[in-house]
Amino acid sequence: MLAEVKGLNEECGVFGIWGHENPAQITYYGLHALQHRGQEGAGIITTDGRNLNGIKGEGLVNEVFDENKLKSLKGKAAIGHVRYATAGGGGVENVQPLLFRSTTGSLAVAHNGNIVNANHLKHHLERKGSIFQTTSDTEVLAHLMKQSGNGPMKERAKSALSILKGAFAYLVLTEDALFVALDPNGLRPLSIGQLGDAWVVASETCAFDIIGAEFVRSVEPGEFLIINDKGIQTDRYTPKAERAICALEYVYFSRPDSDIDGINIHSARKRLGKQLAKEVIVEADVVTGVPDSSISAAIGFSEESGIPYELGLIKNRYVGRTFIQPTQELRERGVKMKLSPVRSVVNGKRVVMVDDSIVRGTTSRRIVTMLKEAGAKEVHVVISSPPMKNPCFYGIDVSTDSELIASGNEIEEIRQLIGADSLTFLSEEGMKNAIGRPDDNETRGLCMACFTGNYPTEIYPDTVMPHEKELVH
Amino acid sequence: MLAEVKGLNEECGVFGIWGHENPAQITYYGLHALQHRGQEGAGIITTDGRNLNGIKGEGLVNEVFDENKLKSLKGKAAIGHVRYATAGGGGVENVQPLLFRSTTGSLAVAHNGNIVNANHLKHHLERKGSIFQTTSDTEVLAHLMKQSGNGPMKERAKSALSILKGAFAYLVLTEDALFVALDPNGLRPLSIGQLGDAWVVASETCAFDIIGAEFVRSVEPGEFLIINDKGIQTDRYTPKAERAICALEYVYFSRPDSDIDGINIHSARKRLGKQLAKEVIVEADVVTGVPDSSISAAIGFSEESGIPYELGLIKNRYVGRTFIQPTQELRERGVKMKLSPVRSVVNGKRVVMVDDSIVRGTTSRRIVTMLKEAGAKEVHVVISSPPMKNPCFYGIDVSTDSELIASGNEIEEIRQLIGADSLTFLSEEGMKNAIGRPDDNETRGLCMACFTGNYPTEIYPDTVMPHEKELVH
Amino acid sequence: MLAEVKGLNEECGVFGIWGHENPAQITYYGLHALQHRGQEGAGIITTDGRNLNGIKGEGLVNEVFDENKLKSLKGKAAIGHVRYATAGGGGVENVQPLLFRSTTGSLAVAHNGNIVNANHLKHHLERKGSIFQTTSDTEVLAHLMKQSGNGPMKERAKSALSILKGAFAYLVLTEDALFVALDPNGLRPLSIGQLGDAWVVASETCAFDIIGAEFVRSVEPGEFLIINDKGIQTDRYTPKAERAICALEYVYFSRPDSDIDGINIHSARKRLGKQLAKEVIVEADVVTGVPDSSISAAIGFSEESGIPYELGLIKNRYVGRTFIQPTQELRERGVKMKLSPVRSVVNGKRVVMVDDSIVRGTTSRRIVTMLKEAGAKEVHVVISSPPMKNPCFYGIDVSTDSELIASGNEIEEIRQLIGADSLTFLSEEGMKNAIGRPDDNETRGLCMACFTGNYPTEIYPDTVMPHEKELVH
Amino acid sequence: MLAEVKGLNEECGVFGIWGHENPAQITYYGLHALQHRGQEGAGIITTDGRNLNGIKGEGLVNEVFDENKLKSLKGKAAIGHVRYATAGGGGVENVQPLLFRSTTGSLAVAHNGNIVNANHLKHHLERKGSIFQTTSDTEVLAHLMKQSGNGPMKERAKSALSILKGAFAYLVLTEDALFVALDPNGLRPLSIGQLGDAWVVASETCAFDIIGAEFVRSVEPGEFLIINDKGIQTDRYTPKAERAICALEYVYFSRPDSDIDGINIHSARKRLGKQLAKEVIVEADVVTGVPDSSISAAIGFSEESGIPYELGLIKNRYVGRTFIQPTQELRERGVKMKLSPVRSVVNGKRVVMVDDSIVRGTTSRRIVTMLKEAGAKEVHVVISSPPMKNPCFYGIDVSTDSELIASGNEIEEIRQLIGADSLTFLSEEGMKNAIGRPDDNETRGLCMACFTGNYPTEIYPDTVMPHEKELVH
Repeated sequence: MLAEVKGLNEECGVFGIWGHENPAQITYYGLHALQHRGQEGAGIITTDGRNLNGIKGEGLVNEVFDENKLKSLKGKAAIGHVRYATAGGGGVENVQPLLFRSTTGSLAVAHNGNIVNANHLKHHLERKGSIFQTTSDTEVLAHLMKQSGNGPMKERAKSALSILKGAFAYLVLTEDALFVALDPNGLRPLSIGQLGDAWVVASETCAFDIIGAEFVRSVEPGEFLIINDKGIQTDRYTPKAERAICALEYVYFSRPDSDIDGINIHSARKRLGKQLAKEVIVEADVVTGVPDSSISAAIGFSEESGIPYELGLIKNRYVGRTFIQPTQELRERGVKMKLSPVRSVVNGKRVVMVDDSIVRGTTSRRIVTMLKEAGAKEVHVVISSPPMKNPCFYGIDVSTDSELIASGNEIEEIRQLIGADSLTFLSEEGMKNAIGRPDDNETRGLCMACFTGNYPTEIYPDTVMPHEKELVH
Repeated sequence: MLAEVKGLNEECGVFGIWGHENPAQITYYGLHALQHRGQEGAGIITTDGRNLNGIKGEGLVNEVFDENKLKSLKGKAAIGHVRYATAGGGGVENVQPLLFRSTTGSLAVAHNGNIVNANHLKHHLERKGSIFQTTSDTEVLAHLMKQSGNGPMKERAKSALSILKGAFAYLVLTEDALFVALDPNGLRPLSIGQLGDAWVVASETCAFDIIGAEFVRSVEPGEFLIINDKGIQTDRYTPKAERAICALEYVYFSRPDSDIDGINIHSARKRLGKQLAKEVIVEADVVTGVPDSSISAAIGFSEESGIPYELGLIKNRYVGRTFIQPTQELRERGVKMKLSPVRSVVNGKRVVMVDDSIVRGTTSRRIVTMLKEAGAKEVHVVISSPPMKNPCFYGIDVSTDSELIASGNEIEEIRQLIGADSLTFLSEEGMKNAIGRPDDNETRGLCMACFTGNYPTEIYPDTVMPHEKELVH
Repeated sequence: MLAEVKGLNEECGVFGIWGHENPAQITYYGLHALQHRGQEGAGIITTDGRNLNGIKGEGLVNEVFDENKLKSLKGKAAIGHVRYATAGGGGVENVQPLLFRSTTGSLAVAHNGNIVNANHLKHHLERKGSIFQTTSDTEVLAHLMKQSGNGPMKERAKSALSILKGAFAYLVLTEDALFVALDPNGLRPLSIGQLGDAWVVASETCAFDIIGAEFVRSVEPGEFLIINDKGIQTDRYTPKAERAICALEYVYFSRPDSDIDGINIHSARKRLGKQLAKEVIVEADVVTGVPDSSISAAIGFSEESGIPYELGLIKNRYVGRTFIQPTQELRERGVKMKLSPVRSVVNGKRVVMVDDSIVRGTTSRRIVTMLKEAGAKEVHVVISSPPMKNPCFYGIDVSTDSELIASGNEIEEIRQLIGADSLTFLSEEGMKNAIGRPDDNETRGLCMACFTGNYPTEIYPDTVMPHEKELVH
Repeated sequence: MLAEVKGLNEECGVFGIWGHENPAQITYYGLHALQHRGQEGAGIITTDGRNLNGIKGEGLVNEVFDENKLKSLKGKAAIGHVRYATAGGGGVENVQPLLFRSTTGSLAVAHNGNIVNANHLKHHLERKGSIFQTTSDTEVLAHLMKQSGNGPMKERAKSALSILKGAFAYLVLTEDALFVALDPNGLRPLSIGQLGDAWVVASETCAFDIIGAEFVRSVEPGEFLIINDKGIQTDRYTPKAERAICALEYVYFSRPDSDIDGINIHSARKRLGKQLAKEVIVEADVVTGVPDSSISAAIGFSEESGIPYELGLIKNRYVGRTFIQPTQELRERGVKMKLSPVRSVVNGKRVVMVDDSIVRGTTSRRIVTMLKEAGAKEVHVVISSPPMKNPCFYGIDVSTDSELIASGNEIEEIRQLIGADSLTFLSEEGMKNAIGRPDDNETRGLCMACFTGNYPTEIYPDTVMPHEKELVH
């Protein structure tokens, strides 16, 4: 279950708008819809054509901003960012968008992804005199642009982008334009929309629904967009591109009401559940999903298998970050906070528990135990993705093989470790078909590296993974 | 859709515990699980056998309390309360439990419900010299106990309770005992559980799951329990009693993982949805539920009808009370906050939209419009309860007939007003059967007064309804 | 040093206004000026002629209120209150003004002082059926008014007031009028002013300066004022009255810019310092005062003695209530927070340290030690009041003789205990003359009971002193 | 009156410690004592020998930090900073210390002062590829160090410092050492102390008193200190140096309990007041000072002139930044917040009002008017510094001649503008003598440029003054 594993999180969501009289407010609503992509920090930077102004802070979007702050951010364009957890103190410097000032004009950058040659480039840039003030890859782009000569900003941006390897969705705001760029594999989702005369860009289409914008199209891998007062213009910083979007966006990260390349996430998850029901043979009384991300798959499983879907597990909606944790003593007495089993639903029943993935296995074991203590006769765990055996270098914070239970254990061993009566993972083919992307290449346009080990980009020996950045901090 | 209608809310949740070394902490977790029953105020009062001590405040449970505050509330027993909205300022006096001090001992009271003869009794008590400091009915019980002579506390409580008419679940804490009382119709839910050697009482069983307590049984209508260091003792303050629990607890108020009299709420809602599918003939492509309370019914409808369940509407999880509302101008441009339609799911589809009720109709019309703007070809509204035609006097804040769209309009008129392509309500019989309570009387143990007009208690001409109390304030 | 002794504090400040279009705002500013009289809670209740509305909370005036809250309190009249510390939790009920609701009209009460027969009256009232919800004496007045029949409010108030013994300055707000009453000895200060057409009442005249009101006169002992739309009317609830205002109001409690009966507090303190310089013979290099309350006396001492006044002790202005206390270890290393000695001023010097009083002696010892550690060659402590030997029953929270170092020790013993090179207290006659009130009775219109043991009122065997109320809580 | 003029503020206070087991806590207390030097932002960065970690935020020291945050900042050394106001949003980036990360080691910088050739250097650095992320001069030092080659950090720091012109007190923290540097004129105060085995550095000695540290000596102009595990080592980055400390540190900025070069600030101010009394002939009844900074001078004036010192003006202690301002209407009715006249002290009197300076004259006019409205017969304004005619380039935010009333007006004109009965400024010689520094050069070691126009450093045509930086933002 991805959400429950500390550190397993994607990095961030981005939102941008050009040509609106309330750019900060619209960006605020957009970031709100993207809040699930990062809850630890948020920022908005606007431009009025002459200056860049911004506010950022640690916490949720509605903790960082209030009406007066939004009103103070005037202009005609904005970019915004929501950021996932940073460990320890001092994190506010890492909250994006980052703002780079210069006597000849300013630059704000918001970034979602992970640059695999960032460390390599940082060494190179530092030798040339660059100073880094954050631990994020985002600064690398700004320094590359600075170092790439005196040409027009647009050319410097393209030149800098062509050097980067890895996963990135970049929004760059200057006084004159909003640049948008996606990595050559389109590893991260990024969509374009229209709100009246204004152009909007967002990590997920749910940000368009909340503001009433119309979806126009996805940004293409390797594409470079220039949005300014003259409109939107497409360009490329590299001719090479092959779509390999992170499969976990469908399985776990994106909001169920978002679409990626025309495929609705909830519907994709239901198909993953249905496919799973086709691949597994299990006798059971009820199907239940681990909330929130596995509910859709559980409903699909139920529809296909005919085993009724019931609410066997519930997540406490009001559990916030300020929540007081039960003491060890109270915990031993059974006090549970985030997730509770529903005794009357599972007691005496054979339960199919649908989850989206198994990472370390600890959460799965806890939930299985919880269901058994609540009286479940049998617990059959079915996972709507294949076993996760390889680290991700593109922004998902599972960094070493040793953390992945499926990396060193056979399925039967995992079953025993988590205490389930049976355990089934979805097949790779089943996953590709259920998601059903239009691409006709071998991976169907998906990055499935964490399952297969086939990485769509070069991997550098000194790639710094997200969790390691914290150590530098 | 009950949740969306301002003012349509039940009054409160209660929790009590006797015989635990951390009564405030346990009550905190219990109130957390009951948070959906009231988000505007919370309080906890403990006793250490000699004094009563308490903390209360406006806001969510985890806004009112922190670790230090909980630690300061030492003792062996506690009662707690979560309270629904109070309009305007000065509300903190109304936050419960209320504490009444006396030179001979103190008294704390927490109450869920509405006393229909409260106004009548207040006039009487004031003539005898009582002074009221809040606008809540809760004070009435304390004054009646005070005025009923010098006998033992227990007898005075029973005598006072026998005078009250209406809906009430009362927890009364003294230095020596925790008294628990339920009205003669058991209009509000109230359950008893055990946590190790401690006894616990709560409005809903979900509060037992979060603390790891075992459910023992429901409190009986007219029952009066005394819990103290010697254990639990049952008694009655009235011989007359006939169960008539509010049907809306099953349909809307209670949490899906709670049980009432052995019936799981989620399962009851699924059966309401299935029953609805039996009663209606509709051709459609997708079924969707209005989140959160109608999801279970929508899944039931889908299972029975064979029309696939999809996520056509989504609720923004991070919308809190501090949320900045879009301006009129932004609203006109389509900025939506709480609820968004999922365009890719509903576009070009015939949609069955399952909701739990229609009160004023404004929310239903808004959602139907939203779905149509998102491309739905047809929207068929199906409601998992009968038309609501009569005001509630027992704590549900719909006060006048004129607010209820079903009170003055035929179903076809309502359909036109909300803009649906068809509209179906569940039958009264269908509702009773689907909930499936064990009672064999005509109402199957339910209060269905808001649908039928048959009130289980006397109604007084000067009954003050919850929304009117605010006016006095 | 009174301010430093936990628990030695007066109870509260009151402010009232009738006939202004912004009564809540004006009261807010007034309470602000009275903030030094109570920092633990604040409240304002307004009337618009039909209803009473209020807001109150724990904390400083500007923590409890903001612009929106003040705007929500509309009307033409208001009363407000600032309250001193309440120990432990649950204190918000005790924050005043208290609001008593009735089907025939409401009543708000704000009170400064201590009723010595409160416990006696409470027993009596409880026997007649009254219920108390707070531990404050303020409720007693409301219950007495309720029990005193059906006559006009004004008559019931007078009748109730005539039964009370002790110290009280009462503001009572109804929909029609603002009643103002002072105890027969005028133990607490209370002044009347005018702000345009509006009448204002306040514990201290500094509240008039902040709002630009003109001082009119002091309220007389035993006086009862009725302020309403017709103007101000004076009356008496008792013919017996003899002024005996708390001498500590001059010495310590009141703000230096306030006047009491035409005598400016700063000037009175300077005269106390001058008188002290006349009564003591000391050879010294510098005079320093313990901030803030003893600065004026120190300047007076310096003027009279010719020894230069220097800043030997400084109070950290930014130390708020949220301040992190140094750990034991850090404290041992010398970390000081509230008060620091100024080494360069005192090093190698013979220092006269002027303070307003010695209660337990612990603070005096700490300051003397601090000065010596900073290099002071000699520390001569001079106190601008006589030795405090007797408890106060009128609202100053020193409750038992045993807490008063001067109660069981001779001056020489105290000198040794606090480690001073010499110790001098002001004489009783010196104090009376320096304050210089116009009254020609023996006490010159002062209550000096804590010095002399001569109490101006009866004392009841069961008088509850402020600190004991907390225990009941 | 400097404090009242928006924008007239010094930039910041700094604190550093090396060799203590609780460096963050000690720095917290130190910053607390320096809070008067900047209330808008605070930060602390620690090192444990391997990494740098920090927390910073907008607001007061005790708003930015709490116990848990301090505990999270472990290590053996720390630097901290309090910062004066930044206008508008986005200010948190400018809160210091700034942290510069590099693959070969990190660098934290805290700075007090203003670099007059900063803009010149920024242009140069940008041409070489530097990117700036803040508007503060602090970054310039880090970039200069980066660009000055690959030598040891210490040498690069010295080389960078030698290029800077203007006022600066720098603390630089690396994993191995704490560097301390003061500009060649020692324009800003900076002192060294010892706390047990640890070395401490602070803008003012009051920070030593609060933590119980011993003052050792002032940092010398042009001095460069290296503090590390081996102890403290002195060095110089420039041979040229002549002390010219800002005279306003004595007159206004520093806390009265601090010493600069052995001279106590309170005592210096008293001498300024005494000197003023020698230079002016005025017949008056009372002397009063504008709180807080002019109280000491007023007492000195009173001592010398024999005119009694009284409390004619009072500052409301509880006025915080959240204070609700009176509306225009309320203001017209006389509602005053920060400063009130004491009517009973000034009514009918001839008042000497002592203030530290006149900048724009608006505040002086307001106070004179206030005193006259309170009944003062005459108001004689005496200023404990000479007329301020020239802008400051070293960190005091008065930027243009046109803002300075003394720049374009004769003393008699100023007197008329502020409505005083007489107006006297202290002479330049009088000021130098009263402060009484040991230096024997013409300025007695003071920078008096704002009075005389003689700047101790070169002035660059493009010097960016503090208030202008905000415009770039």
